[in-house]
Amino acid sequence: MSVVNCELNKSLIGIFDSGIGGLTVVKAIQAALPFERIIYFGDTARVPYGPKSEVTIRKYAADDTAILMRYQPKVIIVACNTVSALALDIVEKACGDVPVIGVLKAGAELAVQVTKNNRIGVIGTQATVGSNAYARAINELNPDIEVISKACPLFVPLAEEGFINHLATKLVAEHYLAEIRTEEIDTLVLGCTHYPILREIIEATIGSGIRIIDSAEAVALRTRELLLESGQLNRSQKASVPNLLVSDLPQKFSMLYQLFMGSELPDVHLVEV
Amino acid sequence: MSVVNCELNKSLIGIFDSGIGGLTVVKAIQAALPFERIIYFGDTARVPYGPKSEVTIRKYAADDTAILMRYQPKVIIVACNTVSALALDIVEKACGDVPVIGVLKAGAELAVQVTKNNRIGVIGTQATVGSNAYARAINELNPDIEVISKACPLFVPLAEEGFINHLATKLVAEHYLAEIRTEEIDTLVLGCTHYPILREIIEATIGSGIRIIDSAEAVALRTRELLLESGQLNRSQKASVPNLLVSDLPQKFSMLYQLFMGSELPDVHLVEV
Repeated sequence: MSVVNCELNKSLIGIFDSGIGGLTVVKAIQAALPFERIIYFGDTARVPYGPKSEVTIRKYAADDTAILMRYQPKVIIVACNTVSALALDIVEKACGDVPVIGVLKAGAELAVQVTKNNRIGVIGTQATVGSNAYARAINELNPDIEVISKACPLFVPLAEEGFINHLATKLVAEHYLAEIRTEEIDTLVLGCTHYPILREIIEATIGSGIRIIDSAEAVALRTRELLLESGQLNRSQKASVPNLLVSDLPQKFSMLYQLFMGSELPDVHLVEV
Repeated sequence: MSVVNCELNKSLIGIFDSGIGGLTVVKAIQAALPFERIIYFGDTARVPYGPKSEVTIRKYAADDTAILMRYQPKVIIVACNTVSALALDIVEKACGDVPVIGVLKAGAELAVQVTKNNRIGVIGTQATVGSNAYARAINELNPDIEVISKACPLFVPLAEEGFINHLATKLVAEHYLAEIRTEEIDTLVLGCTHYPILREIIEATIGSGIRIIDSAEAVALRTRELLLESGQLNRSQKASVPNLLVSDLPQKFSMLYQLFMGSELPDVHLVEV
């Protein structure tokens, strides 16, 4: 455990999630904004947030924001769908002037831009789908859009077990997506940060001609726009590995980091929550 | 929500688990001891225990025991493998004269009795297998026994999603059990209370000639012995549905109860932890 280098704090992009799923956002940010430095907090001690009460989730959201605010980021990205749905106002309040981008709204916005037939599918965890938050966010932008949602609870454990190209995952995807396939959607939102790991199988199962909206990519695009608008985009700073903060270090963390990021685990800093 | 009927408290068998998995123990107790009344507490608000620290698990174990002790049970069964491994002493202390039976020790004892070639396989969650608790319990009884363990993290979500006879589950079982199948075990312990739900697929995959030890059944046998020895066995009292206490009522609870018990959900009592 070492201390996070604070030298270039002002230029950091802060990202937090309830666990490791938000690493897909880190990866998307690295791809879209290769010169930015990132600080990531994963609340691995208290994951998952989804099944917890709203009061608890709002408290956790405030904690997570406070942890990142210590590093004076220029933007905070909420990679957690649950916090995006239930506690974005708490994060915004705790951030003051620092802009906040939520993964849910970014995904919903991109889906609304992309759909041509106004029929959007959304897949996510039981908690996200049960909250109806994507449908609400999409219908706030365009009330004429029909949103068809489906919870896919096995996708997270399958992704975390590394069953990326396994026939079992293909069969599970066929089971979950059978109904949504008959709904004539033209756009499918991956409403869980784990799902990009299984994108290939999901894409092959949902069928051709359906545009996949990866919320992680959507949030990266939105962040790029925001930094361009505010003139805070780094164009030449040396890129580096993300600074990683976690509240617990699970046994499988190194394997999972490798799976999500495709690279070796850098130094990790343990934070008490 | 109603108040648990306390009339026949003295004859209650108390069972607790971190969540709903312990319902397989309830079912096994009902089969082995059809005239006993059961009170079950599932700590559904704080599940899972496995990934949490030992200090926290020991605190939760004390809480869970205290909740059941209010009903003056004649025996307390720890259906949670994590508590059985890390906090059985806490439960025993809190129970005073009331005997305590842990699912882990009961399963280990039965496996040791059954094995002929002294090669026992154990499957369980990452937390249970990582703790090495079954191997320790087995080797305390017989140090000559070779224990081969394998974590099967997808079995719990597959069981909870009702993928009981699904080809995806068969493929996952083949993946997990491939190695253990080459180890010439003659006994396989289902070291997780969820696994009896998938027993058929596990049994078919591990191959014939291997005796499956269902910890839930083992604990029921041990409870029967204990009640016979102490003269506390009910032989004619009218059987009834179990009294159910939970700390949270997840959306899927009714479906899961049906899946685990094969009957409709009776009244459930919400307890604060």
